[in-house]
Amino acid sequence: MSLVVVGSMAFDAIETPFGKSDKIVGGAATYIAWCASNFTPVKQISVVGGDFPQSELDALTARKVDLEGVQIKKDEKSFFWSGRYHMDMNTRDTLVTELNVLGTFEPVVPESYQDCEFLMLGNLAPAVQLSVLDQLKNKPKLTVLDTMNFWMDIALDDLKKVLARTDVLMVNDSEARQLSGDFSLVRAAKTIMAMGPKYLIIKKGEHGALLFHENKVFCAPALPLEEVFDPTGAGDTFAGGFIGHIAKTKDLSFENMKTAIIVGSAMASYCVEKFGTERLREIGNDAIHERLEEFVQLANFDIALV
Amino acid sequence: MSLVVVGSMAFDAIETPFGKSDKIVGGAATYIAWCASNFTPVKQISVVGGDFPQSELDALTARKVDLEGVQIKKDEKSFFWSGRYHMDMNTRDTLVTELNVLGTFEPVVPESYQDCEFLMLGNLAPAVQLSVLDQLKNKPKLTVLDTMNFWMDIALDDLKKVLARTDVLMVNDSEARQLSGDFSLVRAAKTIMAMGPKYLIIKKGEHGALLFHENKVFCAPALPLEEVFDPTGAGDTFAGGFIGHIAKTKDLSFENMKTAIIVGSAMASYCVEKFGTERLREIGNDAIHERLEEFVQLANFDIALV
Repeated sequence: MSLVVVGSMAFDAIETPFGKSDKIVGGAATYIAWCASNFTPVKQISVVGGDFPQSELDALTARKVDLEGVQIKKDEKSFFWSGRYHMDMNTRDTLVTELNVLGTFEPVVPESYQDCEFLMLGNLAPAVQLSVLDQLKNKPKLTVLDTMNFWMDIALDDLKKVLARTDVLMVNDSEARQLSGDFSLVRAAKTIMAMGPKYLIIKKGEHGALLFHENKVFCAPALPLEEVFDPTGAGDTFAGGFIGHIAKTKDLSFENMKTAIIVGSAMASYCVEKFGTERLREIGNDAIHERLEEFVQLANFDIALV
Repeated sequence: MSLVVVGSMAFDAIETPFGKSDKIVGGAATYIAWCASNFTPVKQISVVGGDFPQSELDALTARKVDLEGVQIKKDEKSFFWSGRYHMDMNTRDTLVTELNVLGTFEPVVPESYQDCEFLMLGNLAPAVQLSVLDQLKNKPKLTVLDTMNFWMDIALDDLKKVLARTDVLMVNDSEARQLSGDFSLVRAAKTIMAMGPKYLIIKKGEHGALLFHENKVFCAPALPLEEVFDPTGAGDTFAGGFIGHIAKTKDLSFENMKTAIIVGSAMASYCVEKFGTERLREIGNDAIHERLEEFVQLANFDIALV
């Protein structure tokens, strides 16, 4: 039984008010794999060009990320995205998007991935996500979907088909409003959960995240940081921490989903401390537990005295 | 030993995207008194005109709000504010401000208020807050200050004098940025705490509140609401719940301040459900405990499994 992750593996070039990166390794599935592999082995589905560094693939393999499902198109180029963040670090302009190998990506689920118990559909074209769902012979115990406004704009019909087969959806607050057509996040959550997902996670960046399920709500804090160095991949890292914890514990209760969101938040708070995946590569169990303890102090209160 | 509250008692007329109120009773000290009197007796310092309803004064007296410090200027008019909220309910335009009695307000601290142990300086001209501080013969155990951008714009010198004598400052996120000149709330908190307050509470509306003290941070959630009917007075009600809980428990530890913020948040979440103070008048102990239990469910998580 295993965790299967689908998403892009790519190059990014990032500009922030505080600095500028070279062309560095990025992509949703890359961040998810670096993060989730702290908790459980990962079976990766993606596509890269001949320009993608072998050292990166080797480093992931060394972390028990199975790359059998990663297609390497030797004569093509990897997906490339370049963007510039504004002062608030919540909004950004896309400077360059070169789809390259991603433009014609047809995922193939290896036979060895058919034991998939937990499926993480990273941010990617809904048609690719649907293809993976169709190729799996058994429905996963939990399917988690990360998506974005871009797909709501250009591929809403496909996205709705994925949503109907999704257990947990992750979007940010403006995307929840766009998808539901409702400004109130509480009403937006009801509308979106009627589209398929039994659980909805609304990510609010520096304001934390909300988890909705039936009539229940959980509000996770974000760690207040003196500096957000590079927000790229924070959402993917959050997804990786969430699904990594769920896959490790195999506990699908609402209470454990709360804990999984805290794990995702803790991992994301590390991610933004340096450019790209750099910080994720440095941290291990001790650092993770230290940050989780900070979250307990951050959110814990005693109401017994009232 | 007692809680002394300073602030405006006034009339408001409110427009929201969802409705419009008549000229109704409002004012920072009114909201604080309605809220804090659930937890502890209140000694009120304010000023009203002859137009302020006797029934409102009687209702507050019945709740153990001592009005000896409230000046009634029979031949003058009460402070009047009128505003219109935008769709997001976080921003608003002021339509009318008539200072009336507030323009010449010189607070007088009655002798019976000299046992003041907890002082709540509600949002008001810093000169008035300073006058109250000067008239108190003994320094209170805890002085809490609520203020706003308006006073930073026109009375920053006076405000800094109040800040130097304040233990806990409450402002919203944009005000914290304005006062500190720093976009990062973590750095803003350090700058502001160097101005006097040992504790800083940054209110973030629907995103909850942050409490800073030394190197510690606490992040309180806001209850996600389907509808915010009228945000007027939410900040004052938050202040009333915070200081009411502190005055009741007489516990100045960081842990109890966390609890006090949850109490303030719970009370504020009731306040916004109806126009003006209407909802605060309806609720009692049962409703308060029910909402507090919702906050426990909202924020509580178990990290033991990680």
